Amino acid sequence: MSLLVVGSVAFDGIETPFGKVDRTLGGAATYFALAASHFTKVRVVGIVGDDFTEKDKAVFRTRGIDLNGLEHATGKTFFWAGRYSQNMNERTTLATELNVFADFRPTLPDSYCDSSHIFLANIDPTLQRSVLKQVRVKPKAVGLDTMNYWIDRTPAELRETLKHTQILMINDDETRQLTGEHNLMRAAKHVFKMGPKTLVIKRGEHGALMVHDKFLFSVPAYPLEEVHDPTGAGDAFAGGFMGYLASAKGVNERSLRSAMVYGSVLGSFTVERFGVERLIHLKRSEINARARRFSHLTKFSL
Amino acid sequence: MSLLVVGSVAFDGIETPFGKVDRTLGGAATYFALAASHFTKVRVVGIVGDDFTEKDKAVFRTRGIDLNGLEHATGKTFFWAGRYSQNMNERTTLATELNVFADFRPTLPDSYCDSSHIFLANIDPTLQRSVLKQVRVKPKAVGLDTMNYWIDRTPAELRETLKHTQILMINDDETRQLTGEHNLMRAAKHVFKMGPKTLVIKRGEHGALMVHDKFLFSVPAYPLEEVHDPTGAGDAFAGGFMGYLASAKGVNERSLRSAMVYGSVLGSFTVERFGVERLIHLKRSEINARARRFSHLTKFSL
Repeated sequence: MSLLVVGSVAFDGIETPFGKVDRTLGGAATYFALAASHFTKVRVVGIVGDDFTEKDKAVFRTRGIDLNGLEHATGKTFFWAGRYSQNMNERTTLATELNVFADFRPTLPDSYCDSSHIFLANIDPTLQRSVLKQVRVKPKAVGLDTMNYWIDRTPAELRETLKHTQILMINDDETRQLTGEHNLMRAAKHVFKMGPKTLVIKRGEHGALMVHDKFLFSVPAYPLEEVHDPTGAGDAFAGGFMGYLASAKGVNERSLRSAMVYGSVLGSFTVERFGVERLIHLKRSEINARARRFSHLTKFSL
Repeated sequence: MSLLVVGSVAFDGIETPFGKVDRTLGGAATYFALAASHFTKVRVVGIVGDDFTEKDKAVFRTRGIDLNGLEHATGKTFFWAGRYSQNMNERTTLATELNVFADFRPTLPDSYCDSSHIFLANIDPTLQRSVLKQVRVKPKAVGLDTMNYWIDRTPAELRETLKHTQILMINDDETRQLTGEHNLMRAAKHVFKMGPKTLVIKRGEHGALMVHDKFLFSVPAYPLEEVHDPTGAGDAFAGGFMGYLASAKGVNERSLRSAMVYGSVLGSFTVERFGVERLIHLKRSEINARARRFSHLTKFSL
């Protein structure tokens, strides 16, 4: 099994009540790939500038991540900067410099065209779809993330891409905006008609809810005493989720439930340190131990 | 086992996107008692005016609730009115007429003084404590609800009452306000020092989190397609929780986890209809069926 992710590879400037970094490795595809790499082989499709060094690439390579699909362009790498409020409930974007990302046209190396699992991180839905067109074998699962910008600006293109998506992973507000329905259970029925039969609603500190047309599953966020940097938690969730799924025997109720838990596990580790730091040095034994803690956190007998 | 609740018995005016009622039976003690009555014998300590009729009392009596501690005073019953926003995320209070409730001094009938389980709904902490002083046998569990008003206005009195409380049931914001700590896990440690060794954080549509000094337990809210009226959901949660606990063999990790589930079950039924309507006609078989659905909603195998 092999998991392909397309999305942003970036440098981030992050300020939280716990500290400040001017420039650290970030981007949705980065968080996703590092999280997923704990479960399966990951292939990255993205673009970086000539400020992206061998040292940056080494972060991926030490985790065994395939960078054959990472394009190098002349110019600077996508840069994002943000500041979190004292409570980390709110985030102010300080800078969004698309740089080489503005002209990104995803191109899959031949070696990627047999990817069994695909994750389309939050980029232009037309680009997301162009990736699917380049895959030669029907994937076992296609996951997709999007945001208010695309729901608002490119609704037709997004609808077209959703037709080819099995698992939609978005937050509460995006679910409501996409469907025009406030109630999430009714919103899910709208989503099912668009294509995906699995809706994963990411709720940050409130965990995640999976609405499948055959079952429901809810997982809490792991209650942490220290949250240093929420950046990338949702992407790491997606990485843990899709990574586990690619390592499982099939996409079924059992593996989808477990995927939700491993997604939450990876999201919870991510926020404990700045940037991708925690994801790099994470051990599989730590992942397994926290997954067991999720069991303990949610189990009961009537 | 017998469960005593002290709190408001009221008439409510409620407006939601699904309808409007000018005057319906409400109040924290009412929702609590009706929810708890599905598990155990409930005794109510409260006050009503001379507009409170036999028909209103019959609602309690058909559920076997003991009203010997319900004082009748000259004047009008506590009246509250509120309007929910289109999304039901926000509530505007339109009227708060304390009426006879303004001079409420809880007095326990002799027959209540052996109550094994006690719930102090959200009233003046000095009145909450006066109830505990009147109980002659050490209760097996004392639960307490409070709100920003008391945390802000009567902190010393609240601290004193908390010393005699085992289970504190409040929401995220109240937890933060009470402890001055944003992080809920660290906030819980402050709560433990105040007295209660069990903190139940009610999070509305996001479920509830129990932080005990020995374990953690999280339960989601039941995802509903129809939420007609959120009024009383937190009080019904408390009623389901304490009612189950009073019916269980003891207060221990196992029964506390189950109590969280039954609390969520009762809260979820409450919001399906206006006011207390759903709680009155609820069957134990429906409660059990939904509790099993909570199992299905949260179970996974690694």
